[in-house]
Amino acid sequence: MRDTYREELDDITTCLVEMTNSVGSAMSKATTALLDADVALADLVIAGDAHIDAVRENVDDRCFTLLARQAPVATDLRSVTTAMATVQDLERMGDLAQHIAKVARMRFPDHAVPQEVRPVFLDMGHTAESLVAQAGTIIAKRDIEAAVRLEADDDLMDRSHQQLFRELLDDTWPHGIQSAIDITLLGRYYERFADHAVSVARRVVYLVTGERPLPMAAAAS
Amino acid sequence: MRDTYREELDDITTCLVEMTNSVGSAMSKATTALLDADVALADLVIAGDAHIDAVRENVDDRCFTLLARQAPVATDLRSVTTAMATVQDLERMGDLAQHIAKVARMRFPDHAVPQEVRPVFLDMGHTAESLVAQAGTIIAKRDIEAAVRLEADDDLMDRSHQQLFRELLDDTWPHGIQSAIDITLLGRYYERFADHAVSVARRVVYLVTGERPLPMAAAAS
Repeated sequence: MRDTYREELDDITTCLVEMTNSVGSAMSKATTALLDADVALADLVIAGDAHIDAVRENVDDRCFTLLARQAPVATDLRSVTTAMATVQDLERMGDLAQHIAKVARMRFPDHAVPQEVRPVFLDMGHTAESLVAQAGTIIAKRDIEAAVRLEADDDLMDRSHQQLFRELLDDTWPHGIQSAIDITLLGRYYERFADHAVSVARRVVYLVTGERPLPMAAAAS
Repeated sequence: MRDTYREELDDITTCLVEMTNSVGSAMSKATTALLDADVALADLVIAGDAHIDAVRENVDDRCFTLLARQAPVATDLRSVTTAMATVQDLERMGDLAQHIAKVARMRFPDHAVPQEVRPVFLDMGHTAESLVAQAGTIIAKRDIEAAVRLEADDDLMDRSHQQLFRELLDDTWPHGIQSAIDITLLGRYYERFADHAVSVARRVVYLVTGERPLPMAAAAS
């Protein structure tokens, strides 16, 4: 029974890591769609979210079955409940990539992101992709040192986010209220994406060390 | 063993219902703090979030212990995994009330919400409180008809949110970019609060009917 349990848990972990790849790819495409006003790419991200949702359902069902059939305890049980929480974070990261793609679609053929803040969104896109890639490694290897590094990298997102507000509040901002609304929401989506990556890392730290992660609010602005 | 299980599950359900009360109270105070620029009340909400986080940890631990000791299956197991997911929604709703209180605090002694959009925020506050109260009843009674009504009431929040954007995009909006940023984020916090109430209702529907809830993205804009 224990061998079956291990195999199934390894498979679930593999699914979670693949999900970080899917979410990272969605975020990469969403950022490109946003910066290039590429509506075809935006549509790909929007349509692709159903796949991420389906993987989430699959992982949920497999975790449930594992609990029902194997009745794990202690760390084995914690591994399953952690997977059930992690899959929620990853699904939500997929939603946020989709939200970004929807803004690109809504403003097409215009660019939702004016030239002035383009470099900031490039940085936020890179940081988001890096964070979710790190989250994948942390899940795969249960690497708590990498989890600590991820938290430091999340500071990059916070700095970009603050830079965004400085640009918007510059007296010379010429793009009006609609653009300010778009950029505020876009900034929030990138920031929340990063928060969920932090949350994934903290769940792994809890699993490995028993040290409870801070609530997600502590990672939010 | 089954009796112990039922008692413990009932206690967990009671905790979840009490948590909806705490979160509803936090949201009510946050809205008042925002509209009256009441910094003392804002501070109460900000400090009070630690209690909501603590209840969440307690519910999490109790669910974990229940799984480990009783190894429930089928609907009994689903009740516990639903509680573990629900408590995450409720904690996040507490965070969002705290975010609203923080905007009130940040702008004090000014009002973050100009007169023009005050009625919209009053409506959003009422809707948010009503939704979380309904969520409490739905959890307590496993009332899936009430869950359907909650989804309809969530439309009120969407309409308020759209009204907010219409006000911001009116050519005569005199309050500048900072105010537009604040109001965009505040609107998002209320909307997400409502999304999580919908998510709670859908989880109960799944528990009772076996019909899987739509992913949360479907409830988001």
